[in-house]
Amino acid sequence: MEFSVTLPGWAQDEIQKLPHLETIEDRMRAVIRFSQLNIEHDTGGPFAAGVFEEESGKLISMGVNRVVPMSCSSAHAEVVALSLAQKSLKSFDLGSVDMPEHQLVVNWRPCAMCYGATVWSGIRALVIAGSDGQLEEITGFDEGPIHPKWKEELIARGISIQDDVLKDEACEVFRLFRDSGKLVYNGRQG
Amino acid sequence: MEFSVTLPGWAQDEIQKLPHLETIEDRMRAVIRFSQLNIEHDTGGPFAAGVFEEESGKLISMGVNRVVPMSCSSAHAEVVALSLAQKSLKSFDLGSVDMPEHQLVVNWRPCAMCYGATVWSGIRALVIAGSDGQLEEITGFDEGPIHPKWKEELIARGISIQDDVLKDEACEVFRLFRDSGKLVYNGRQG
Repeated sequence: MEFSVTLPGWAQDEIQKLPHLETIEDRMRAVIRFSQLNIEHDTGGPFAAGVFEEESGKLISMGVNRVVPMSCSSAHAEVVALSLAQKSLKSFDLGSVDMPEHQLVVNWRPCAMCYGATVWSGIRALVIAGSDGQLEEITGFDEGPIHPKWKEELIARGISIQDDVLKDEACEVFRLFRDSGKLVYNGRQG
Repeated sequence: MEFSVTLPGWAQDEIQKLPHLETIEDRMRAVIRFSQLNIEHDTGGPFAAGVFEEESGKLISMGVNRVVPMSCSSAHAEVVALSLAQKSLKSFDLGSVDMPEHQLVVNWRPCAMCYGATVWSGIRALVIAGSDGQLEEITGFDEGPIHPKWKEELIARGISIQDDVLKDEACEVFRLFRDSGKLVYNGRQG
């Protein structure tokens, strides 16, 4: 009658140790580092996401992919980060008028589900490390049947997009993941 | 460092009392009843979803919309039902080869997020009460920028779709919701 998604223990420690993340690159570098730690600790797929106050850079939440450890196919990094931020701020809407504007920083473009989750979350800005075919080519992960004009659709709903932020560093982690031989857990194994 | 989504107390009682749901219509009727109970108890939006073993009709989980009470924009009925089913079956993949085929029954078509969540969940069949503009027209809820050919995309991934099952009954609950004056919580209120 209840499901929970938790961050791994190492993530709790690492979040405490994070310095103030001033620039977009600082924030993305931290997110990419969490994506790498998540595979090194074998606590999920190679994906991480952070919710920040856009202007101040204050970190509201950090999420990592928890699909396999939590037996929950919706526990993508974005959904985890957004849900933790909403819990922390006690609001289902990170874009409400009484709040500073929030930004979601992710180590790759959203999948077909996280695209919709981004719309509903109320965030105002999406920062991604890349959006071309490299993730799927390197790792074999499937991004799913997303809207063919997903960038335009997000922008039309008032969500700005900044792409190609530290793309090479993000892809380096995907190569580490590929070389580790860990599970690529795309839907419907059967 | 953790977020949880719980079913309301009344749902736990009602699930215990459910008879065996043999036909598609039996299953949809139960789902529509849960959507109505969710607004009557003021425990979320007018949406419910059930995961069933397709052939036997065994109920694996029932979910209702919990966005506002849980401060979680991803807590749509489908995500709640799928996550509870995956927890119950200890698998992120409801379509794995060692399981009977699973079916998701929902009182309307998926939104832009739940469409993707459906793909990742591993379910084999989607049964919906309707998919035209009536929900949005009656209630003002926004389904979001879903893929323009979402039905074809789901079918291409091996998920069968049965539409227009007890549509009038489903719409009747949407009218009750509209007339109740409760919050329509679309993303980005600000």
